[in-house]
Amino acid sequence: MSEIKDYIKQNRETFMEDLFGYIRIPSISSKSEHKPDMVKAAEYLKGQLLKAGADVAEVCPSDGNPVVYAEKIINPTLPTILVYGHYDVMPAEPLEEWKSKPFEPEIREGKIYGRGANDDKGQAMMHVKAFEYLVKTNQLKNNVKFMVEGEEEVGSPNLGKWAKENKDKLKADIILVSDTSMIGIDIPSVTVGLRGLTYVQVEVTGPNGDLHSGLFGGAVANPINILTKMIASLTDENNKIVIPGFYDKVKDYSAEERAAIAMAPFNLENYKKNLNIEEIHGETGYTTLERTGIRPSIDVNGIWGGYQGEGAKTVLPSKAYAKISMRLVPHQNHIEIGELFTKHFVSIAPKSVKVKVDVLHGGQGYVCPTDIPEYKAAETAYTDVFGKVPVPTYSGGSIPIISALENVLGLKSILMGFGLETDAIHGPNENYHIECFEKGIETIVRFYDHYSQQ
Amino acid sequence: MSEIKDYIKQNRETFMEDLFGYIRIPSISSKSEHKPDMVKAAEYLKGQLLKAGADVAEVCPSDGNPVVYAEKIINPTLPTILVYGHYDVMPAEPLEEWKSKPFEPEIREGKIYGRGANDDKGQAMMHVKAFEYLVKTNQLKNNVKFMVEGEEEVGSPNLGKWAKENKDKLKADIILVSDTSMIGIDIPSVTVGLRGLTYVQVEVTGPNGDLHSGLFGGAVANPINILTKMIASLTDENNKIVIPGFYDKVKDYSAEERAAIAMAPFNLENYKKNLNIEEIHGETGYTTLERTGIRPSIDVNGIWGGYQGEGAKTVLPSKAYAKISMRLVPHQNHIEIGELFTKHFVSIAPKSVKVKVDVLHGGQGYVCPTDIPEYKAAETAYTDVFGKVPVPTYSGGSIPIISALENVLGLKSILMGFGLETDAIHGPNENYHIECFEKGIETIVRFYDHYSQQ
Repeated sequence: MSEIKDYIKQNRETFMEDLFGYIRIPSISSKSEHKPDMVKAAEYLKGQLLKAGADVAEVCPSDGNPVVYAEKIINPTLPTILVYGHYDVMPAEPLEEWKSKPFEPEIREGKIYGRGANDDKGQAMMHVKAFEYLVKTNQLKNNVKFMVEGEEEVGSPNLGKWAKENKDKLKADIILVSDTSMIGIDIPSVTVGLRGLTYVQVEVTGPNGDLHSGLFGGAVANPINILTKMIASLTDENNKIVIPGFYDKVKDYSAEERAAIAMAPFNLENYKKNLNIEEIHGETGYTTLERTGIRPSIDVNGIWGGYQGEGAKTVLPSKAYAKISMRLVPHQNHIEIGELFTKHFVSIAPKSVKVKVDVLHGGQGYVCPTDIPEYKAAETAYTDVFGKVPVPTYSGGSIPIISALENVLGLKSILMGFGLETDAIHGPNENYHIECFEKGIETIVRFYDHYSQQ
Repeated sequence: MSEIKDYIKQNRETFMEDLFGYIRIPSISSKSEHKPDMVKAAEYLKGQLLKAGADVAEVCPSDGNPVVYAEKIINPTLPTILVYGHYDVMPAEPLEEWKSKPFEPEIREGKIYGRGANDDKGQAMMHVKAFEYLVKTNQLKNNVKFMVEGEEEVGSPNLGKWAKENKDKLKADIILVSDTSMIGIDIPSVTVGLRGLTYVQVEVTGPNGDLHSGLFGGAVANPINILTKMIASLTDENNKIVIPGFYDKVKDYSAEERAAIAMAPFNLENYKKNLNIEEIHGETGYTTLERTGIRPSIDVNGIWGGYQGEGAKTVLPSKAYAKISMRLVPHQNHIEIGELFTKHFVSIAPKSVKVKVDVLHGGQGYVCPTDIPEYKAAETAYTDVFGKVPVPTYSGGSIPIISALENVLGLKSILMGFGLETDAIHGPNENYHIECFEKGIETIVRFYDHYSQQ
């Protein structure tokens, strides 16, 4: 273990140079003017992987941005680790809020600042460097494959298909991903749950045009009034969702599993203080961590209709709209939930209005059992480096590609994220602690070690 | 009666010239660049009133646009009629939708086209011409006063104060107003009810900033979810408003009064067809005409919060807003209703959110009893001219100045409107049937006659 520490120490400058060169390429996937930067970033990473010791590294075309693939097969009969990451980044706006320029990385107070410093250039670079160390010191005891995409920040629209088409090439035993965060720099954690998502837009139409609310109010259904009634009726007094069949496949967690969730440090007073709320709000009978981790939820993400300007306008509008999303947990199916929602929502509409439901978007949830050997290897690796057993955490968010890869490749992912909630990924002044970067490399090296000994 | 008919026939061209000159002045009260036109229109009307036979006519300064006042006192001991009207008009936009220019009036197929042709230059001119006839033919048997304001289309913000300051000058026995419409050219009607209004804006705040709906959804109150619950709870399954005290002062109508309301022609199938709705929607136990005429209602005029753009954004917003108006009926007080709403709305908010209610706007409702002698005089006048007893109608809309004048001057108004719903007041191609204009003059003359005989 001191060996890898020394290696990091000796190569600190090179590691930073390699990462900085990567960050300097503005590979923003949501902006078409950055198309050439996508290829540039992919080529850069390919070079890094070859330098680290990959036998093969290639920039593979897909239906969208190219996928970087690399491998080192030391013995086809040995187990294979597939590392997943992404080389694309979010836009950097608002630029004026950055202290240093987003694509000119710099170090301040032990942190690397720049777009992608954490998400996911910094976190993916840890895997490249851990791999480099193992190759250079002749300690690699399993095969390694890398699959790094360029469309994660726009919802990975093409990777699932690409993975399906390259199923043989991607044959492996486990997926390693560093694209999440841990509770704190001294409280290691591994994300074992991600929620799924069904996102719909609804449209309620009353009269065929806007009416004067004086002349018609009280006699004609107002689509906003009706929409509020319909949305309000989706949950009961215990904040349980009343859509028939909604909970049918929701996994029940054992007392033991719920005790493990409760291990994660959580301070309700701080939570409320940070959000400036007097009370939390959620499903009766569950803790906050359970409500976001293992229970589904429903949120109106947007609503609009009628007059939104200054002052008073007495309109009875023709239409009202809402965007509604449901976060799903194992084993809910996002397509089935979209169907259940649509059927229910249409059924509760009074005859005085017309209703349209569009399912905009969806993805499956993901759960990693904490009793599989790969999780145990990760757990021991963290304990080696941080001196503490990592807390298994259930994130309320979604990374749809993780469940898609499980579906296509039949592989579980271990979500070894080393970011911190304070790293401002997606925002201005994104940063990554050098300590997290280095401990991440160490932990990954320890994971390879424990994994190969199983 | 044939006498007034002849007078109209002989003077048709002059009447049109006088009205056209009035319409040509673009006295748009909502646009500050038309300030000089307001004075021009006031002076024009003053000239018309002097020409018609007023002893005194003046353009009186107020806190806003001037008020035109005129009078003919034939004997201070006789009853006095106060005619109310307005010389300001709505903007004419969209200009490209007008067939002829809005301020260049012309006659097509028996209708006068132009902004203000009906509302209220055409309707007010009927009173000038009826008055002229009575003076010229020496038939005036009571005193007459005119009060014509220049701010009706912007909510009459200054007339109430002006009337209070000129209470003695305005001393009268009844107010006559032609600023409403009748059911049809062959179905005369008199508006006897106008609803009041309380208009509020509500703001619901959840967390102190927008949150990721994945990470927080299900654990933190979403202000849109909460707002829909709060709004939905304002009415019960019979579409009755549940705000405590809301109905306390609502007038109960007798079976006889309700039978009179039912006299107004109403075709439910056409109503639904015109609005393209399958079913109407309103308070259980009342007809459509009652729901808009004698019952209060609540409408969300606007709602907004969160993401309204294309596609999916998983935001749990910090704030949600709605504009909500209540139409009021006698004897509800709009200020008291604003207070009841605010108190109730704040009381139903869960502790997980903060709520703010702003009362933006309000006005009292108005009702004219059909058994007072002045209404009877109007009824007989219509019957003389149209050959049919006019239908007393309850309009769902509001003209706040009518109840304000009742309050300040202690006078009832008789709403003798001769417009038609199809006259497109406020819209492009506003028009006024010459037949309505002329029958209006006749009816007003008959009213004076019956009134002075009482």
